[in-house]
Amino acid sequence: MPQHKDRVVLAYSGGLDTSVAIGWIGEQTGMEVVTVAVDLGQGGEDLETVRQRALDCGAVEAYVADARDEFASEYCMPQLQSGGLYMDAYPLISAISRPAIVKHLVTAAREFGATVVAHGCTGKGNDQVRFENGITSLAPDLKCLAPVRDLAMTREFSINYANKHNLPIETTHHNPFSIDQNVWGRAIETGFLEDIWNGPTKDVYNYTDDPTYPPLPDEVVITFEKGIPVAIDGNAVSPLQAIQEMNRRAGAQGIGRIDIVEDRLVGIKSREIYEAPGAMALHVAHKELENVTLDREQARFKRTVSDRWSDLVYEGQWFSPLKRSLDCFIRDTQEYVSGDIRMVMHGGRATVTGRRSESSLYDFNLATYDEGDSYNQSNAKGFIEIFGLTSQLAAARDVKFGKGEAMGKSKLG
Amino acid sequence: MPQHKDRVVLAYSGGLDTSVAIGWIGEQTGMEVVTVAVDLGQGGEDLETVRQRALDCGAVEAYVADARDEFASEYCMPQLQSGGLYMDAYPLISAISRPAIVKHLVTAAREFGATVVAHGCTGKGNDQVRFENGITSLAPDLKCLAPVRDLAMTREFSINYANKHNLPIETTHHNPFSIDQNVWGRAIETGFLEDIWNGPTKDVYNYTDDPTYPPLPDEVVITFEKGIPVAIDGNAVSPLQAIQEMNRRAGAQGIGRIDIVEDRLVGIKSREIYEAPGAMALHVAHKELENVTLDREQARFKRTVSDRWSDLVYEGQWFSPLKRSLDCFIRDTQEYVSGDIRMVMHGGRATVTGRRSESSLYDFNLATYDEGDSYNQSNAKGFIEIFGLTSQLAAARDVKFGKGEAMGKSKLG
Amino acid sequence: MPQHKDRVVLAYSGGLDTSVAIGWIGEQTGMEVVTVAVDLGQGGEDLETVRQRALDCGAVEAYVADARDEFASEYCMPQLQSGGLYMDAYPLISAISRPAIVKHLVTAAREFGATVVAHGCTGKGNDQVRFENGITSLAPDLKCLAPVRDLAMTREFSINYANKHNLPIETTHHNPFSIDQNVWGRAIETGFLEDIWNGPTKDVYNYTDDPTYPPLPDEVVITFEKGIPVAIDGNAVSPLQAIQEMNRRAGAQGIGRIDIVEDRLVGIKSREIYEAPGAMALHVAHKELENVTLDREQARFKRTVSDRWSDLVYEGQWFSPLKRSLDCFIRDTQEYVSGDIRMVMHGGRATVTGRRSESSLYDFNLATYDEGDSYNQSNAKGFIEIFGLTSQLAAARDVKFGKGEAMGKSKLG
Amino acid sequence: MPQHKDRVVLAYSGGLDTSVAIGWIGEQTGMEVVTVAVDLGQGGEDLETVRQRALDCGAVEAYVADARDEFASEYCMPQLQSGGLYMDAYPLISAISRPAIVKHLVTAAREFGATVVAHGCTGKGNDQVRFENGITSLAPDLKCLAPVRDLAMTREFSINYANKHNLPIETTHHNPFSIDQNVWGRAIETGFLEDIWNGPTKDVYNYTDDPTYPPLPDEVVITFEKGIPVAIDGNAVSPLQAIQEMNRRAGAQGIGRIDIVEDRLVGIKSREIYEAPGAMALHVAHKELENVTLDREQARFKRTVSDRWSDLVYEGQWFSPLKRSLDCFIRDTQEYVSGDIRMVMHGGRATVTGRRSESSLYDFNLATYDEGDSYNQSNAKGFIEIFGLTSQLAAARDVKFGKGEAMGKSKLG
Repeated sequence: MPQHKDRVVLAYSGGLDTSVAIGWIGEQTGMEVVTVAVDLGQGGEDLETVRQRALDCGAVEAYVADARDEFASEYCMPQLQSGGLYMDAYPLISAISRPAIVKHLVTAAREFGATVVAHGCTGKGNDQVRFENGITSLAPDLKCLAPVRDLAMTREFSINYANKHNLPIETTHHNPFSIDQNVWGRAIETGFLEDIWNGPTKDVYNYTDDPTYPPLPDEVVITFEKGIPVAIDGNAVSPLQAIQEMNRRAGAQGIGRIDIVEDRLVGIKSREIYEAPGAMALHVAHKELENVTLDREQARFKRTVSDRWSDLVYEGQWFSPLKRSLDCFIRDTQEYVSGDIRMVMHGGRATVTGRRSESSLYDFNLATYDEGDSYNQSNAKGFIEIFGLTSQLAAARDVKFGKGEAMGKSKLG
Repeated sequence: MPQHKDRVVLAYSGGLDTSVAIGWIGEQTGMEVVTVAVDLGQGGEDLETVRQRALDCGAVEAYVADARDEFASEYCMPQLQSGGLYMDAYPLISAISRPAIVKHLVTAAREFGATVVAHGCTGKGNDQVRFENGITSLAPDLKCLAPVRDLAMTREFSINYANKHNLPIETTHHNPFSIDQNVWGRAIETGFLEDIWNGPTKDVYNYTDDPTYPPLPDEVVITFEKGIPVAIDGNAVSPLQAIQEMNRRAGAQGIGRIDIVEDRLVGIKSREIYEAPGAMALHVAHKELENVTLDREQARFKRTVSDRWSDLVYEGQWFSPLKRSLDCFIRDTQEYVSGDIRMVMHGGRATVTGRRSESSLYDFNLATYDEGDSYNQSNAKGFIEIFGLTSQLAAARDVKFGKGEAMGKSKLG
Repeated sequence: MPQHKDRVVLAYSGGLDTSVAIGWIGEQTGMEVVTVAVDLGQGGEDLETVRQRALDCGAVEAYVADARDEFASEYCMPQLQSGGLYMDAYPLISAISRPAIVKHLVTAAREFGATVVAHGCTGKGNDQVRFENGITSLAPDLKCLAPVRDLAMTREFSINYANKHNLPIETTHHNPFSIDQNVWGRAIETGFLEDIWNGPTKDVYNYTDDPTYPPLPDEVVITFEKGIPVAIDGNAVSPLQAIQEMNRRAGAQGIGRIDIVEDRLVGIKSREIYEAPGAMALHVAHKELENVTLDREQARFKRTVSDRWSDLVYEGQWFSPLKRSLDCFIRDTQEYVSGDIRMVMHGGRATVTGRRSESSLYDFNLATYDEGDSYNQSNAKGFIEIFGLTSQLAAARDVKFGKGEAMGKSKLG
Repeated sequence: MPQHKDRVVLAYSGGLDTSVAIGWIGEQTGMEVVTVAVDLGQGGEDLETVRQRALDCGAVEAYVADARDEFASEYCMPQLQSGGLYMDAYPLISAISRPAIVKHLVTAAREFGATVVAHGCTGKGNDQVRFENGITSLAPDLKCLAPVRDLAMTREFSINYANKHNLPIETTHHNPFSIDQNVWGRAIETGFLEDIWNGPTKDVYNYTDDPTYPPLPDEVVITFEKGIPVAIDGNAVSPLQAIQEMNRRAGAQGIGRIDIVEDRLVGIKSREIYEAPGAMALHVAHKELENVTLDREQARFKRTVSDRWSDLVYEGQWFSPLKRSLDCFIRDTQEYVSGDIRMVMHGGRATVTGRRSESSLYDFNLATYDEGDSYNQSNAKGFIEIFGLTSQLAAARDVKFGKGEAMGKSKLG
């Protein structure tokens, strides 16, 4: 591939900032710019329109990829299987999209001979870390550039630049929302929510209808195989279709709205609004199927693994060695996470009402208090005596040192 | 206290089984029976009625205690502060009530000179372990007895015994529900739910109204001090009052219904239905206030502590050394968990809409993207390079061993 | 396989207790006894001698297996790779041998049509749990029997029984030591060490010479591939050979003696003496090779995994679902644990003096303070400011609430 | 305190670099320099000599403090109680000294009206982070300065500056060792050890004699109260005296040499040599006393706490909220860690030979296999059946899905 100038690949959204960045990076670095636009189900313009705009704004090459199935299968599904919600709440919508984009940025960098990768993030968010750590974790020789952060590209500057150069992009002086979205969900930040006493207004939401005024309850049966949804109401679905279908149905019921103060990687707390109807509904179903099919000790340790997994992914370590080792653990736990979950969705709630699995560890004959009980209650006494022995010995010591019953009694006052 | 016969204290509910146990234990062991009835907010008959019935059924002494405030302050509040939900779902309703009862059983055993403590649990549940480990962890010299498990007291036997001895207690041959309840919530098991594909029927619930047909949304402001609710809508409340008020208001909105397949301590999975409107609503508020006031690393490690705390408490280790050491950790984290949470309760959802705290770690000037931003974005580049260095070095090794980009590319197909 | 009576397979050591058990089980249960003797490198009599004795004592079949290579490869090597030392000390000598024996017990049970598995353990140790949980975790239909515990086989009884029936086995009325050994190490319990203030006497040890008077220092280079030793001083070795060679050389230097008070699964503390020269020397080398080749975050989380792994294996959960999922994690971490460790062994110490690995993550150019330094120190300031931001914000809050410097100062007096 | 110029406090060692920094900071910043020298038991020159040199080099004030007892009591003892060894090896010698110095830096900054704190660290080590995060975690308003990193103070520059200004300090063009030491131990880095295949030479060590040629074995009895050594061989000691005495005696036996490749906070691996004779001998004794006195579950969770504690302290988070909450946990566990440990020290080994404690949880009557056994073996069968139930159910599922015995058998070949 003959090439005269050094090249930079730019993660390109088609919006104002990255359109301006095409020219501005060229001016500031003397490099040619190759744009990369990836469809992760964010909707909006089609890829061809985006590709053409990039070229019109000065890109020497414009790489586009429909990665929706890939994103659903290789990023959303592992997230679902992990069970990992950052801060027990956030299904890592943007966090899993960055590595998905990074793979294409690296592919494009190799294809078009670039040595630098650029992205449009600011210097105070998580996404700059996710992009840059993702890139250097996959292609340690590539350099990173963030024009907004490193080349002083303010909003004001971008508007003026676009106007001056007649770029084929709409410039608006103010948009109250900062939005990132893909098929797994939608993240919204906006100025008036930076006062954390303010509640969100209705116009914040787009993937979900207001749960206060829901339509009739919607019952759904989701079939999983090894932790992956493979059918909805008996109809086979791909991962992407499962998410899309659940986005539609759970979204209509207002499920999956999240409003939290979140700990960013860069040390600050920020207010975040998310909506992830399909993701959250699938998590509810998957979790209950795990309750039925995972061994108790496996499930307990998986919580520790989930927490670490979601912290790592939140922090942009998707391609890190630890993330991959945790994946091995998680994958093994999903071996038997197969079966059906029946769920009623209504007014913001996804409520499991039934579970059915060939690989269930729930044993009716052991659990029942009715006839057919196969559990031997006489084992319990020995179990309890041995199970409680360590605490009993510690209690005898408390008594010896005057800290036992006395302590108990005094507290009762 | 002169005393001719050995004595046993019996955890007494006033119901059929434990009423029969008074006489049956006496017959089988030759010991005198002292009953202990403790009010934890379970409602139903008043303590004096229960006391009189115990004496009528043959108890030599009948100890009663109104422990509602004690239970709320010393058991429910630590549970709230811990954030610990067993299997991420269950607020330990019965699990925290057993040690509360155990303290009174031990107190009564000492007061009335008993050497044995009896309870009405079966041999296949968690509560036998909680009672017996609780007792030997507080008073290691006391022995335990479970007449249902150890003295073959079936339901059939109890009905016949009560009829034969004309005990002043209603005998019904069939009650479909097995219920345990207190001010923190309500636990329901019932035969037809042992088929885990069956959904619960409406008559299962008592603390909560149907969330499908809710009244108008109810906005509430809860004020916490050090992780404890101290005011609701500006009116000072005790812990007990906070729970009662939230039970009423969250219950009206159908909040806090839980339906899970649960891992019991004794090795089996069982289907459990709970309702805990006040508890779950308070947890939602407390958790978000922690998001605002806990340091990130403190919050992350607290998840590990919470998980262990809730497993321990679920397993009847309330008085164990580890539980007490974990309490020290948790208490320290609550130092700054003070402030107001505004929440809208509606149709089964408790949604936080505002937070306000003098001890907040959320810093508007660091978080804002508007004017007044005090965050120095130029620090980010150095941070990212060092933060990502370990993964970058690992990636360089992958490349060296032919597992880097190639791997990435092949997966992209 | 036509068969008239039910059959039991018995884990057979060739010693007094299990020789007596052959006849005693037959008498007590009416079942035929099939013995199973497995060579895990414990030394002593050859398998043929043991086989003949079993038949002479009344076994209908006597299964023997040389499982030394299998034990080294499938049990000792995973233990080494896990890095898991129970209570940071014990390399799980007996704990990993029980599942190795269990597999042969189950194989023999299937081959000879047995429905019960018997072992010679008492009722207060860990090994009964390891045998029985191992068996029911591999073959859930098999029943377990422990004649010493369940059929009242005291030592006195066994001696009398052997004498009465002229069994071809030596009977001694007193042996001060209770010993379990295999190629991975040796475990010793003895009466006078039950006083934990007593030190061990010299006759306790057999695998190790006294480190107080060592021979000259012995330098060794161990080569690992994926966490497995594959060569010693340049000579290729199998896992079994690696352990044997290191037992000999590290044993001569008195390496690997362990003397601890240990927490048993059954709730009591016991005094245990172990010697594991090869195992402990290999662990020292493997650990330092991990220091060089594991990513930092992978290594940190592996400590958590190791702890859980060793607790599980100690508690007889070798075949449990969680153990297998943890193995997946561990195996993935060993991908790059390849290279050479040079170690000097002398007087009880195994001291690493050099490491060399193609897959090292140690980067001389980043680490050096001399010329050639490729580390960009200017990144540090940004890193530190962001890394320390959460604590700084918390400190500002301390100051606001009068708990900051004041607290600091008052402690300084 | 009237004051004309802004002031900076400088952590002052009395050596070349920080002596030069006094003048160089003045020139570069226009601020007055106040030096702070703290004695943590590092030996060398007396404080008065150091104080005078600071003034001679241009300091406007020279603060000195003998903090040896404070360091031993408030930093070394918590480190001992935590049991936390970074990477299971390093007793955090330098890591705990930095916050001890930081407290005096902050005290001096307040006393002398300084707004900046300076230290002599480079930009690629851990200590810069420990100093700066320590300072901003205690006094968030203070700014930090590292002249070596931020003001381009190379070694060459310092030598020339000292010669040019006739500073009263010896200038040598090359010292092969970079050393940090205090009463808790000594850390050594040196160029030829940056090749990690090289072993350390004898001149690296100073606190320990060569363990290859030890004197006669030295038996010692250490008495602890709540995890703190309070007597040695029956003679009462302060924490400082305990460390000093053990440094002398364990040092003579060559105990406490550590040679590892370590994961630095700043993302690189580095080779480190430490010697900590007293610290490591005390850790051995303390750990075994915990084995005797800690409850099993407390001990297990404490490992998780220790790991986090040592990672945090290694990373300069001594004053962080999480560190303080972990301290609460650790302190509670030490309640009963009292008693005597007898230990033989010889040739690099510290071997516990006896333990004795009033608060022991070791129960001879439960542990013994001799007469007097109070353990009820008949409880074991019920315990094992229930304890193993979850794995048995999982195994039955494996069998159902054809993955049980078949899997077991195939592996046996």
